[in-house]
Amino acid sequence: MTSDIQIARAATKRPIAEIAEGLGLGVDQILPYGHDKAKITHDAIATLTDRPMGRLVLVTAISPTPAGEGKTTTTVGLGDALNRIGKRATICIREASLGPNFGMKGGAAGGGRAQIVPMEEMNLHFTGDFHAITSAHNLLAAMIDNHIYWGNALDIDTRRITWRRVMDMNDRALRDVALGLGGVANGFVRQSGFDITVASEVMAILCLASDLGDLQERLGRIVIGYSRDRQPVTARDLKADGAMTVLLKDALQPNLVQTLENNPALVHGGPFANIAHGCNSVTATRTALHLSDYVVTEAGFGADLGAEKFLDIKCRLAELSPSAVVLVATIRALKMNGGVAKADLGGEDVAAVTRGCANLGRHIENLRGFGLPVVVALNHFDGDSEAEVAALQTYCGHHGVKAVIARHWAQGGAGAEDLAREVVALSEGEVDFHTLYPDSMPLWQKIETICTRIYRASHAEAAAGIREQLETWEEAGYGHLPVCIAKTQYSFSTNPALHGAPEGHIVPVREVRLNAGAGFIVAICGQIMTMPGLPRQPAAESIGIDEDGWIEGLF
Amino acid sequence: MTSDIQIARAATKRPIAEIAEGLGLGVDQILPYGHDKAKITHDAIATLTDRPMGRLVLVTAISPTPAGEGKTTTTVGLGDALNRIGKRATICIREASLGPNFGMKGGAAGGGRAQIVPMEEMNLHFTGDFHAITSAHNLLAAMIDNHIYWGNALDIDTRRITWRRVMDMNDRALRDVALGLGGVANGFVRQSGFDITVASEVMAILCLASDLGDLQERLGRIVIGYSRDRQPVTARDLKADGAMTVLLKDALQPNLVQTLENNPALVHGGPFANIAHGCNSVTATRTALHLSDYVVTEAGFGADLGAEKFLDIKCRLAELSPSAVVLVATIRALKMNGGVAKADLGGEDVAAVTRGCANLGRHIENLRGFGLPVVVALNHFDGDSEAEVAALQTYCGHHGVKAVIARHWAQGGAGAEDLAREVVALSEGEVDFHTLYPDSMPLWQKIETICTRIYRASHAEAAAGIREQLETWEEAGYGHLPVCIAKTQYSFSTNPALHGAPEGHIVPVREVRLNAGAGFIVAICGQIMTMPGLPRQPAAESIGIDEDGWIEGLF
Repeated sequence: MTSDIQIARAATKRPIAEIAEGLGLGVDQILPYGHDKAKITHDAIATLTDRPMGRLVLVTAISPTPAGEGKTTTTVGLGDALNRIGKRATICIREASLGPNFGMKGGAAGGGRAQIVPMEEMNLHFTGDFHAITSAHNLLAAMIDNHIYWGNALDIDTRRITWRRVMDMNDRALRDVALGLGGVANGFVRQSGFDITVASEVMAILCLASDLGDLQERLGRIVIGYSRDRQPVTARDLKADGAMTVLLKDALQPNLVQTLENNPALVHGGPFANIAHGCNSVTATRTALHLSDYVVTEAGFGADLGAEKFLDIKCRLAELSPSAVVLVATIRALKMNGGVAKADLGGEDVAAVTRGCANLGRHIENLRGFGLPVVVALNHFDGDSEAEVAALQTYCGHHGVKAVIARHWAQGGAGAEDLAREVVALSEGEVDFHTLYPDSMPLWQKIETICTRIYRASHAEAAAGIREQLETWEEAGYGHLPVCIAKTQYSFSTNPALHGAPEGHIVPVREVRLNAGAGFIVAICGQIMTMPGLPRQPAAESIGIDEDGWIEGLF
Repeated sequence: MTSDIQIARAATKRPIAEIAEGLGLGVDQILPYGHDKAKITHDAIATLTDRPMGRLVLVTAISPTPAGEGKTTTTVGLGDALNRIGKRATICIREASLGPNFGMKGGAAGGGRAQIVPMEEMNLHFTGDFHAITSAHNLLAAMIDNHIYWGNALDIDTRRITWRRVMDMNDRALRDVALGLGGVANGFVRQSGFDITVASEVMAILCLASDLGDLQERLGRIVIGYSRDRQPVTARDLKADGAMTVLLKDALQPNLVQTLENNPALVHGGPFANIAHGCNSVTATRTALHLSDYVVTEAGFGADLGAEKFLDIKCRLAELSPSAVVLVATIRALKMNGGVAKADLGGEDVAAVTRGCANLGRHIENLRGFGLPVVVALNHFDGDSEAEVAALQTYCGHHGVKAVIARHWAQGGAGAEDLAREVVALSEGEVDFHTLYPDSMPLWQKIETICTRIYRASHAEAAAGIREQLETWEEAGYGHLPVCIAKTQYSFSTNPALHGAPEGHIVPVREVRLNAGAGFIVAICGQIMTMPGLPRQPAAESIGIDEDGWIEGLF
């Protein structure tokens, strides 16, 4: 069998200037990075704003399992298929983080015949966006300690600094550190730590900013901690917002690459899908919409987390309105949601598929609750039996949703033409999209609404201090913000072992965080790791350059 | 008066592909980064190795003073002038570090009419080389702590780990930190710290590596610390060398940009000039030599530090042989070396110029000691009086060296044509270049040789432990390495206030470090800061994007 990386290396890439030309962009409207990557310039984007926008299609999935769902693969396959049936379609996905590749092997953007290239570079430095985010984040951190060192005119309480530092590396030794040791010249000792770059609020901000002006506004609003009299201290108070914007100036421009079938893809930004909203940048999505009939994008994790945040955070803040949702499922993942262990996925098990469909059905109901038309894409595997596929289709039929078999992994865009036609049909219908809750709803009620309406919990619970914290933020003018819930992606509940469609559980909120710059409140429900570690045998040990100059061990 | 940045912004840049074409490089031999920067590919470089090499001209300077000497400006002006008189000349200089720009204002590459562009980007992320170095350095750091976490099979002594972490940021709070706090899951607590990226041994390695294979060899030789039984532990022992090479693959390729007069410049690498050798990369210099009749390059600080390291470290390891040396001086800097304070530089002071020439004369003698022909370039300032200039020329005449007045700052290459003609005349003569000491000399004797022959000290001194450390390294097979002395750049002695040409002083060696990967021993003589801090009012506070989209406050 040909591996993803073999397929990617055999790709016949077109020069990126030609891909840009296909979008109607001239050579002076892009900044090339090598011959197969480019950024679309701020100037070019500014000329597009009056153009009509194409239709936005969200690809999301059932609750993830170790069996894999192929959400990105389906996003890419659908984009290629839409182009094949004569629509001008652009794909928008997130960038990969560099650090984790040195722990576990890196991943393709897509898989099989439905991939985005250049794969190696997208897993390494790409166009440097994440490095720029690291720099901007850490400049603010350095300015905080420097401000304190030179007299602390803002009276920052060193015990209440919430702004940590970041690095795009899996480095557990940095999770919790004491800074400023070594005496007077090095400042005041305090405890802090590092997160991985994708967990930075700067990443979320870059992904939600509409332009450079809005970027600077949002950066300025970042709350880095509190003064001795408990008032929030912002990046603007430290005069860091301008320099941070300068560091992010190039990074805000979307990255243009291509699929194996030479269709355009914007790969830009990559916020966490738990403590952040998990979607590619607003600039990429809006730019693509101005340049295309259809834009196919995806959201992180399953639809309970990813789609909810895409709709309630990204679409709300960026005033986007999707035309259709593709809900990806695989027979294998349905079986795991139906209680089958990964080791036992080999044989046919129709009953397990049917049991797993409860998870699918819950997601369908939720998505329809947003007023959106839904199609189920069955990402087809060779081992899927006809009876198992029929069980899925029967279930979907009973719920008034089409389940379309998609074979893009094996066949590329040609394998997803049926899906593409269904997406076009759905998109051309009337859509009455609305978010789950209004801006004006109190923060705790927003949390409860997501927990009861999407996760189907009986209720959410939190210590009094957390509820008081939310009220304090409401009084400080942050009550209008949407809520981003960080919880396990493996279950509707907070128990990752609870597959299927649990209900009536309780969602405990352990901690709340204010992301005033990004523009959302984070409610943490469970253990969320923001700085991964390397495994016993890190992938890095096998990574190198082979005799032919190819990178080995990265995939 | 027009500022450097105004001149730079008004530059008529040619597309970088045209600059490459002028060097004989096709579009497929470069990787563009935007329209005004490119990397020359490894493949292109591999095709050049059989070509003859042009002549290498080193630009160095008298001992630096706050008055400034204009070494880079002269390098650029000379490069432009050589092109004007019909020679195919390429300039090779170092890249700027990002972090310090947020403390003090950033600098141009050159100045006046003798600059390299694009100035803004060269002061920001440029082509991402330093970010790649940061990643590679910190991957190794993460792998060290991870190795210990998972059982420490190599028996690394956590008290004897010398490999710190790096960040391209002025952040004093990171100089000295305790890592691994927070309990079992975060590893073992130990004290460590961060240096600024340019101080990383990976930077020195990137700048001395001849190709990807040599890069990996050198990375593998890095000694990260010692085991409990005092044996060196290397990056290869940790299997980190392959992955580090992958992270540095693109960064090893030299960056092509252009002067204001559209002549080619390779701007690549930027190691510290105290704890490292302070020169641009070997790949850039060798590539430029294969593509040009003349390559004009510079070394850090004054000739005692910069030129000595360029010759004894870079030329030795890369088997390069310069054809001529340009020693840059200004009337103002000579006066300061003659004892005048910066505030008093306004009026004519011929006697001070003559006194300051002692410093110049010492550098001339030293450079001739390497068997190299020398010309003095007087980087002309408007305020220089005729009598002051005459005093310099008289002094040089007595020492058998030409002093050429160069007006490139005001006039561009046209102002340095006389200098260019003199450089050509010198370069065409017989040159008998030799390093200061042979590889086989014992390490301590190498230190003493530099101190007595170049710094004119009576002797060097060190505690017994340091001498023993050097002997241990000799026994371990590192005795053949050259020595890199880290001391103040403001004096031949270790006292920065001692201007002119002091002699008979003592050089105390406080510490020695093994850079087994880069391939030199560092002898630290004085306080060397490897992680700067931000000032009370950091430049970052004034940096932003103005209404026309220009970056303000960076310069």
